[in-house]
Amino acid sequence: MINENRYFDAKPEVRKIATELYSEVKNLPIISPHGHVDPRIFAENKPFPNPTELFIIPDHYIFRILYSQGYSLESLGIPTQDGTPVEKDYRKIWQILADNFYLYSGTPTGAWLAHEFEKVFGVTEKLNGDNAQDIYDLMLEKLQSPEYLPRTLFNKFNIEVISTTDGASDSLEYHKQIRESGWSGKVIPSFRPDGVVNILADNWKSEIEKLSRASGITVTDYKTFINAIENRRKYFIEMGAVATDQGVLSPYTHTLLPTEANVIFNRALNGTANESDEKAFVGNMLMEMARMSSEDGLVMQIHAGVLRNHNQKIFSRFGLDKGGDIPIQNEFTKNMRELLNEYGNHTNFKVIVFTLDETSYARELAPMAGHYPAMKLGPAWWFNDSIQGMRRFREMTTETAGFYNTVGFNDDTRAFLSIPARHDLARRVDCNFLAQQVSEHIIDIDDAHKLSYELTNGLVKKAYNL
Amino acid sequence: MINENRYFDAKPEVRKIATELYSEVKNLPIISPHGHVDPRIFAENKPFPNPTELFIIPDHYIFRILYSQGYSLESLGIPTQDGTPVEKDYRKIWQILADNFYLYSGTPTGAWLAHEFEKVFGVTEKLNGDNAQDIYDLMLEKLQSPEYLPRTLFNKFNIEVISTTDGASDSLEYHKQIRESGWSGKVIPSFRPDGVVNILADNWKSEIEKLSRASGITVTDYKTFINAIENRRKYFIEMGAVATDQGVLSPYTHTLLPTEANVIFNRALNGTANESDEKAFVGNMLMEMARMSSEDGLVMQIHAGVLRNHNQKIFSRFGLDKGGDIPIQNEFTKNMRELLNEYGNHTNFKVIVFTLDETSYARELAPMAGHYPAMKLGPAWWFNDSIQGMRRFREMTTETAGFYNTVGFNDDTRAFLSIPARHDLARRVDCNFLAQQVSEHIIDIDDAHKLSYELTNGLVKKAYNL
Amino acid sequence: MINENRYFDAKPEVRKIATELYSEVKNLPIISPHGHVDPRIFAENKPFPNPTELFIIPDHYIFRILYSQGYSLESLGIPTQDGTPVEKDYRKIWQILADNFYLYSGTPTGAWLAHEFEKVFGVTEKLNGDNAQDIYDLMLEKLQSPEYLPRTLFNKFNIEVISTTDGASDSLEYHKQIRESGWSGKVIPSFRPDGVVNILADNWKSEIEKLSRASGITVTDYKTFINAIENRRKYFIEMGAVATDQGVLSPYTHTLLPTEANVIFNRALNGTANESDEKAFVGNMLMEMARMSSEDGLVMQIHAGVLRNHNQKIFSRFGLDKGGDIPIQNEFTKNMRELLNEYGNHTNFKVIVFTLDETSYARELAPMAGHYPAMKLGPAWWFNDSIQGMRRFREMTTETAGFYNTVGFNDDTRAFLSIPARHDLARRVDCNFLAQQVSEHIIDIDDAHKLSYELTNGLVKKAYNL
Repeated sequence: MINENRYFDAKPEVRKIATELYSEVKNLPIISPHGHVDPRIFAENKPFPNPTELFIIPDHYIFRILYSQGYSLESLGIPTQDGTPVEKDYRKIWQILADNFYLYSGTPTGAWLAHEFEKVFGVTEKLNGDNAQDIYDLMLEKLQSPEYLPRTLFNKFNIEVISTTDGASDSLEYHKQIRESGWSGKVIPSFRPDGVVNILADNWKSEIEKLSRASGITVTDYKTFINAIENRRKYFIEMGAVATDQGVLSPYTHTLLPTEANVIFNRALNGTANESDEKAFVGNMLMEMARMSSEDGLVMQIHAGVLRNHNQKIFSRFGLDKGGDIPIQNEFTKNMRELLNEYGNHTNFKVIVFTLDETSYARELAPMAGHYPAMKLGPAWWFNDSIQGMRRFREMTTETAGFYNTVGFNDDTRAFLSIPARHDLARRVDCNFLAQQVSEHIIDIDDAHKLSYELTNGLVKKAYNL
Repeated sequence: MINENRYFDAKPEVRKIATELYSEVKNLPIISPHGHVDPRIFAENKPFPNPTELFIIPDHYIFRILYSQGYSLESLGIPTQDGTPVEKDYRKIWQILADNFYLYSGTPTGAWLAHEFEKVFGVTEKLNGDNAQDIYDLMLEKLQSPEYLPRTLFNKFNIEVISTTDGASDSLEYHKQIRESGWSGKVIPSFRPDGVVNILADNWKSEIEKLSRASGITVTDYKTFINAIENRRKYFIEMGAVATDQGVLSPYTHTLLPTEANVIFNRALNGTANESDEKAFVGNMLMEMARMSSEDGLVMQIHAGVLRNHNQKIFSRFGLDKGGDIPIQNEFTKNMRELLNEYGNHTNFKVIVFTLDETSYARELAPMAGHYPAMKLGPAWWFNDSIQGMRRFREMTTETAGFYNTVGFNDDTRAFLSIPARHDLARRVDCNFLAQQVSEHIIDIDDAHKLSYELTNGLVKKAYNL
Repeated sequence: MINENRYFDAKPEVRKIATELYSEVKNLPIISPHGHVDPRIFAENKPFPNPTELFIIPDHYIFRILYSQGYSLESLGIPTQDGTPVEKDYRKIWQILADNFYLYSGTPTGAWLAHEFEKVFGVTEKLNGDNAQDIYDLMLEKLQSPEYLPRTLFNKFNIEVISTTDGASDSLEYHKQIRESGWSGKVIPSFRPDGVVNILADNWKSEIEKLSRASGITVTDYKTFINAIENRRKYFIEMGAVATDQGVLSPYTHTLLPTEANVIFNRALNGTANESDEKAFVGNMLMEMARMSSEDGLVMQIHAGVLRNHNQKIFSRFGLDKGGDIPIQNEFTKNMRELLNEYGNHTNFKVIVFTLDETSYARELAPMAGHYPAMKLGPAWWFNDSIQGMRRFREMTTETAGFYNTVGFNDDTRAFLSIPARHDLARRVDCNFLAQQVSEHIIDIDDAHKLSYELTNGLVKKAYNL
């Protein structure tokens, strides 16, 4: 049974205030401006299949820990790229998770699962090898009931709005279906052009062809490429998008002359572009996306610093998003200077910056967010989206950027059922941080009441124009 | 009303000890060996004009937060370089600060202001939009009374000695006036040669001309340049200086042959020096300044790692020190090796190193300060001069460098009225850190009593030979 | 007198749980899989000479603090390379330590010494200038009694197994003597090939000659070099070794073609190798050592990131390990990619990675250890082997790597008498961390009981196959 005081400091002086602050925000609606839930689940509103296919197989947060302890991905049912058979006995896979559930002690994944099991399925006993199959049975039964349909859960979770992440050429058909279905749930797309921007990716050319088809603009050079992107942004805006997102290895920004960009674009089309071409092209596209955002009002998001598919054996056998994504050091002060100089003083432009390199919080990101009107600081992300990670985020950014240059919480998840768990954890950590500050008379209780609302709903609405 | 227990841990076990330690040091004199207060205010001893010109306009710590939230610097009365008119209604500007005072929640700037308002002006109500003009009136009145003259405040603040920061060619006329006035306040200069060392700066040549005039040595080449600097250091020492200071992008150190240095110096005079020339020249000048310090006994200070004037639009319109200074990553182990090898084993030389890159505290700076006799570790500086920043400084440096290779507190401010607030905050944070350690039996209470004095007065006097 | 509650949080809620957890592990045997104690002391089992030669002269942890405060190494009795006489009055040297014992306040060295003085010698009074000689007398007397012989202390310390660190060509004669003596103490070697791998080191050629003699394989080229190393690993395994260790400046890994490696090896033999040769050669040898470990089962340890002998004056006068070793920034994600791709998915291979750059804990090392089956995360090392350092280690790694991808504690010391102090401190810090997590309901008390055992004995046995 998860404890009502979880994630609060045990000091009575702090816990009391944290409890009070949390009581005011715990039932506020969930606003999820950045995530990876598949919109299809709301469009089709079909039952989720079973606990293993719901919790384990699609979630590299979960299975990476089992992999790190020696379980092969095949034994965990992760589908291979070439169709080689993998474990299909979902109960057996579930048993592995249950037998090893102690491995998740002290991890956010463990905390989220415990919350989901209890608050969504009513399972208060800690998962272990003995109760594994009983819990599987119970969940399986519930998943087949109408109360566990995606739209019902969406409402039960009190989600005010959720954003998906969608490729530049995505038809947004499921978003359309949702809109046309008459269901009131607000599911909006977000524009992510990485597929057409990363010119060295294996499938880049097919992505460009998709872009041509989707936009109706035949992309033959840099100019038509830019036109096609502008065209798609318009469509995304019509479909409710409020933001874009780019995942980049480095936040390097630099505007190329159109002729320079065109030369690189042609090399990419001919398959002769190299790494420095890609770096220059991505740096230029960050500038272009900022320019477009300053015109069309989409909030720009930059997620920087992860080396994807570090484990090439896992990548070739199982594909993307299999736990082999490892952060690298990043540099923001010099890399983002050109973008911030060009657009950072605009009050009608917003760029939200996320890092996986915590060393840049206090040193680079908070000072920049505490100066440039356009820049806001994204919350603790991915490996840092954890109790200690969020604490460090607040400790390292608040004094320089202030609370008001941050943008609330992002769950950033593809695991729909984990959304309430993640937001609840974030609210608790923030309320505890505020309570700590009240207990040390850094802020007063009036400020804390105001801030607990701001960190939960106020700042995210303002930042994403929601 | 600010709380008597502020910045102390709410744990009764810690708060009790922290209170006891703090009670012993709270009234100790202020020793301020590094800062940027204008000596003219003490020379002339005129009343400060009004709250806005006192608190907002000269202090980029304050106005950068308002700028980051969309207020133009013009609307905040910041003077432009070209004289374009800006807001002159000081009450209107004050109202903006008051309306937005909540933005400073959790920031050191907010904490300092609250302390200044209450302890200097007796304003115990939190500033807000409603009481803004009343508080303005009250402060305005007080500022015109003799009790608020700079020298009176200096004495009231219990300042034992304060150091200003002065360019190599500065006449130190205000220091002379102070000395000759018979007033007992001790205001000493500090030698900062950045203007004549940064050979790529726009005004470098005019700085060199000033240096020639000030020293009486016509600077025509590297040799005369060095002579002129040595001459000025002598003059500063006569005027009471105990230290030098250099602000450098990187703490790279390397001695050039005099002929090499001269070639670069000539290129600089001809306007043909490039970035690698500057880097080499600055690296050489750190070596030269260390050599001079080992001869004349001035304590060397190195402040490394800030990229100045990041926001070029703000810089061209408003000039230096307008909040657009952003830290960068730094490397000390390799960069300072040559200097430390050449001078770091001298016991008659001291170099105090400051960083804005906290990642170097535990990794590089504490290990070096815990080995080289000459090296001491400067306190948490600038963006790190904050409650959490100081805590991290102690947590990351004490175990490797010990308390005794640190040098007390630097307020490093141009905001004279904030000096007691800053020292009080630092004393509280240090006492709380010591109390925390006592409560965990890492140190004992006898050590803590001794250390609270050392961290407040003892170590700074020893480090700066005061 | 050291306090029974030391290093536990003063919060009653935490201290109570920490005390309970600690009571269960405090008497567990010491398992020391990585350290630098000289096996000769157990082979010969002679009395330790005197407090100064026991505590000060061989331990650069201790004397670097005195050096940093202006005491020359000569005055501390550190022997010179050229035999220039140094202080030989051991009582005088002891008096310096005692007079300055306050310098160690808040440092792990101070904590270890206090523990050793009290728990090994029964000295409960804090060392100071007044009691210095009395304490010296008392220790001197005890050291001559049979109860203070190395083997007796080994048993008293409840050491289950201790590993030394031994060069590739080491005869392991003392290990043999110990085995043959019939004494039951388990002292095992560990294979450290740095001397024959660092091709630019002054004595590299003589190291290669030693390797030829030790292995019986005349090393004339890269192939015979590899054969000789494989030969020595076999011998170490016969002598009980379970692990290798490599100290590298950078964890860069890349396999060279045998012909490429041979070209570099020849340049090294001819004395014409350069820095990039060494980097390539070391990077290749990390790959080779991983390959061998995946074959012979020795656990691979990589200690990365320290620039040795930073202070060249001290190095030339006094030699290695004199406190002038300073950490540098490190990069693991890209540098270790090739090794992890080649061997990291093997479940019969283990590589334990240690860093002195804490910024890589959360950003790089925990994510990699939380994915690759072969990689485990070494504990807080060297400058980080301290109360706050260990806390940061747990706070920054647990959420991403989990507790179970870490490997317990390493004392890594040459100071035999400090071993119980170091393990006790580590156990206290870990129990306190667990208690903190229980108090915040991040883990439950059942997990905490299990984990306190795992962090003390379980994980280290598993990781090192003990």
